Amino acid sequence: MSFPRRVQIVDVSPRDGLQNEKEIVPVNIKIELINRLAAAGVPVIEVASFVSPKWVPQLADGAEVLSGIKKSSNVRYPVLVPNLKGFENAVAAGAQEVAVFTTPSEQFSQKNTNCSVGESVERLREVVAAAKQKSIRVRAYLSCVLGCPYEGAMHSKKVAELAKIVYEMGCEEVSLGDTTGVGTPLKTREMIDAVSKHIPIKHLAVHFHDTYGQALANIYVALETGIAIVDSSVAGLGGCPYAKGATGNVATEDVVYMLNGMGIETGIDLQKLVEAGRYISLQLGHPTQSRVNRAWSG
Amino acid sequence: MSFPRRVQIVDVSPRDGLQNEKEIVPVNIKIELINRLAAAGVPVIEVASFVSPKWVPQLADGAEVLSGIKKSSNVRYPVLVPNLKGFENAVAAGAQEVAVFTTPSEQFSQKNTNCSVGESVERLREVVAAAKQKSIRVRAYLSCVLGCPYEGAMHSKKVAELAKIVYEMGCEEVSLGDTTGVGTPLKTREMIDAVSKHIPIKHLAVHFHDTYGQALANIYVALETGIAIVDSSVAGLGGCPYAKGATGNVATEDVVYMLNGMGIETGIDLQKLVEAGRYISLQLGHPTQSRVNRAWSG
Repeated sequence: MSFPRRVQIVDVSPRDGLQNEKEIVPVNIKIELINRLAAAGVPVIEVASFVSPKWVPQLADGAEVLSGIKKSSNVRYPVLVPNLKGFENAVAAGAQEVAVFTTPSEQFSQKNTNCSVGESVERLREVVAAAKQKSIRVRAYLSCVLGCPYEGAMHSKKVAELAKIVYEMGCEEVSLGDTTGVGTPLKTREMIDAVSKHIPIKHLAVHFHDTYGQALANIYVALETGIAIVDSSVAGLGGCPYAKGATGNVATEDVVYMLNGMGIETGIDLQKLVEAGRYISLQLGHPTQSRVNRAWSG
Repeated sequence: MSFPRRVQIVDVSPRDGLQNEKEIVPVNIKIELINRLAAAGVPVIEVASFVSPKWVPQLADGAEVLSGIKKSSNVRYPVLVPNLKGFENAVAAGAQEVAVFTTPSEQFSQKNTNCSVGESVERLREVVAAAKQKSIRVRAYLSCVLGCPYEGAMHSKKVAELAKIVYEMGCEEVSLGDTTGVGTPLKTREMIDAVSKHIPIKHLAVHFHDTYGQALANIYVALETGIAIVDSSVAGLGGCPYAKGATGNVATEDVVYMLNGMGIETGIDLQKLVEAGRYISLQLGHPTQSRVNRAWSG
């Protein structure tokens, strides 16, 4: 075991967290959330998506968000882009880092993005090539790496092969996503072991949903393998509109609590983070999904 | 790492889970819950307490519960006893196994049981001596092993010394309780390592509350150390009336989901367990705290 000394948290709440909200969240609330996360010391915040507003109307205001936030020099603000058009819109709006997505699941790819895995990879390749020309960093999400709502269990070898392709095409970071939260610790370890045969561990991130309560145990195992980048969402906001039962990302507060307890640095002020979580929960009118937040309110 | 092939779940919901309910839960509902847990394959169910009804009125019906349940020969039904008087009442009511409790925290001992740790140990010694004469098995709970609401962090050495005392006096099993849920994985490991220097690992159990969302990660670490007995509570019922913010035991459903995913046997039918959790949540009018239950309802 070689736990990292420091973990980089990627808070995805403004994008992955808010994309499922039924009511459109006003842009000023998104901006305030992002500014609060940055002030709490979150080093990377996924702030918006440049997916077609036809598909995700909740995130149609990406350009306004990007121009409205108070940019901190210590914080990176990636945005999600589905294809070259999205990339161009993101760059036009001032994005300095983007995230792309694909999946090893053929059926999930068809239902989520209406294309095959192969076609999805070619879309990514176009984006990565364009990004390289502009020296823009690209992070890649792989969805459904521990199971797919349509195909069931996912073979680690398939995940590793796809991860290798996206890494070798130039994505600097590959985030391994358990989109439906079905993963458990030993399967997590096996999957990471398979992927890390092809990609140096420092270029890997994990992205767990807490649908079955397994996220922190899985993150612990990921840390044991040496992974030092963890995606999470303040207040446990989020889910996936195309994956039944995907009821929320792991709460950033709970991840940071665990890391603090393990003596692993994050640079995040947990109290300020909890306050950011309270802010957005209050605005949305949802109870927080963060256990730390609930305990501190008790 | 040497994961156990099989884990024994000790469901504490009828006692630890219900003791905090404000409204008295009718005895027939408790009996039905216990029968459903047994039918789901839960091998050990803590069914009642013979603490003074003055202190815990919710559990004044221990004798009725014990006589009302349909006893299965595959299931053990321990009851909690605070002292010799409680033990005698339990035996008179037909209990065949008891659980006792103490804590390494002097302040928690004073506030929870109005006696010093030393006095508490002497009470246990009386119970164990009486139990030995009747060939009744005794399990011991140590509370606050990873932190105390009054004293803060707990030194592993203190936990280990007390665990050794209760084991050597004749308690066959020592359950290490993170009563306020403050523990994190590496501290959990350190504490278990300290205790298991004195007590064979097969005589140790872990008892986590999920107050800060850490329970499953901590249980995973406990399994890594070889611990094969895990306390939990269906629907995540419970807490501790004397520990602020102790908002619930880890949900049995979520523990079994993890163990299933790890290929570790429990003998429990997860579907039936989820139904037992739904039954009691409906009766109490609380939303379930089990993520698995929520996901399966989604």
